Amino acid sequence: MLRLYDYFDSGNGYKVRLALAQLAIPYRLIEVDIDKGETRTPEFLAMNPNGRIPLLALENGVHLAESNAILCHLAEGTMLMPGEALARAQILQWLFFEQYSHEPNIATCRYWLRHGLMSPGRAPAFAQKRLAGYAALSVMEKHLATRDFFVGAYSIADIALYAYTHVAAQGDFDLAGFPSVTAWLARVRMQSGYVPMGASMTP
Amino acid sequence: MLRLYDYFDSGNGYKVRLALAQLAIPYRLIEVDIDKGETRTPEFLAMNPNGRIPLLALENGVHLAESNAILCHLAEGTMLMPGEALARAQILQWLFFEQYSHEPNIATCRYWLRHGLMSPGRAPAFAQKRLAGYAALSVMEKHLATRDFFVGAYSIADIALYAYTHVAAQGDFDLAGFPSVTAWLARVRMQSGYVPMGASMTP
Repeated sequence: MLRLYDYFDSGNGYKVRLALAQLAIPYRLIEVDIDKGETRTPEFLAMNPNGRIPLLALENGVHLAESNAILCHLAEGTMLMPGEALARAQILQWLFFEQYSHEPNIATCRYWLRHGLMSPGRAPAFAQKRLAGYAALSVMEKHLATRDFFVGAYSIADIALYAYTHVAAQGDFDLAGFPSVTAWLARVRMQSGYVPMGASMTP
Repeated sequence: MLRLYDYFDSGNGYKVRLALAQLAIPYRLIEVDIDKGETRTPEFLAMNPNGRIPLLALENGVHLAESNAILCHLAEGTMLMPGEALARAQILQWLFFEQYSHEPNIATCRYWLRHGLMSPGRAPAFAQKRLAGYAALSVMEKHLATRDFFVGAYSIADIALYAYTHVAAQGDFDLAGFPSVTAWLARVRMQSGYVPMGASMTP
C-alpha cells in the first residue's frame, strides 16, 4: 500500500490527499510535524534529502517528492490528466506557475501568519509576497473569466491551484476582487470525491 | 515554425534553447529585453498574462509558458524524456525541485548581482537565498555522488538543473565543495548537440 508522509496543515500535502481521495486510491498516512523538525531527522532525510513533505513511498520502495510531481504520477491514465499532448503541456504550465508564482507567495504568507513567524524584519518580504501573490491571483482571474477549469475539464491543475487559493484568506489575501476565482473554487468543491482539507487527514 | 520569445541572459530561456538545439528542432528566436519592460507590454501580456520569458509560440497559435513545461512538451517521445512511468515521475520531481528550491535562490542571486540590483535593504534576502541555494546544491551533490545523471540517462532533468548551476559562480556561489556536481556539469557539456549559453542565441 502507498504510504504518504504529510503534515495536516500543508496545502502541498492536501493536493495529494485530495487526488488520492478523488481517485479512490487507498494509502496509509504518516503524520510528520514540520514545526518539530521531523522532516530534518536523519531518517526522514534518508527518504527525501530535500527534507520536505509531502513524500509518497511507492510500493517498490522508491520515495517520490514534490507535490506536483506526485500529482502527475497518481493522475497518469485517469480523468485528472488528459492524454492529449497540448493539454498535458498546459497542465504542466499551470503546475509550474503554482510552484513558482503562487505557492512561494500565498502559502508562505499564510505559513508565517499561522505559525507566529511574523517579525519587523520580515515585513518587507511579507509586503513583497503579498504583491506577488495578488499578481498570481490576477493571472488566475483573467484565465478563469472565460473558463470553468484551468485546462479543459477538471484536472490536477485545478487541484494544485485550489490547495492554497481556497485558504488564501489565512495569508491575509482578500478574494473579494476575484469573482471568477471564487466561482471556480465553488466548482472544485462540487467535484466527485471532494474532501475538505481537514477531513483529508483521515483516509 | 516554432517561435521562442526569450532573453539572452536567462537560464530559464537557455534550457529551452539547449533542448531545441539537442533535438535539432528549427525555431525563430525573438529577443525580449526584460530590463526594458518588454515582458510587461500589453502585446506581450496578451501572449503570456504572467509576463515572463521564455515563451514558446506553437504553430497552432497557442503560447506555452514556464520553461520546464516547455521542456516536457518538446522532449515528449524523444531520448530526453523516457516513457517509463517512474522515471518520468522522478524527472518531474527534479524539475519542480529546480523551480522551487534552486532557481529562486541561485538564479535570483545571480540576477541581482548582474543587474546592479543589490542594496543594503536586500542584504538579508540575499543571505537567505545564498543559504537556500547552497542547500539545493548539497541535495544535488548527494544525489550525483552515485549517479552520472539525475534520472537514468541524460534527460530534461539535467538540462533544467544545468542552466543555472553552470553559472552559479555569477551569483557568488562557489562550487569547489561540490565535486560530483562539477563532474556532472562536465558530462552535460559533452552531450551531443550541446551549445553554450551565449551561442544558444543564434539558432
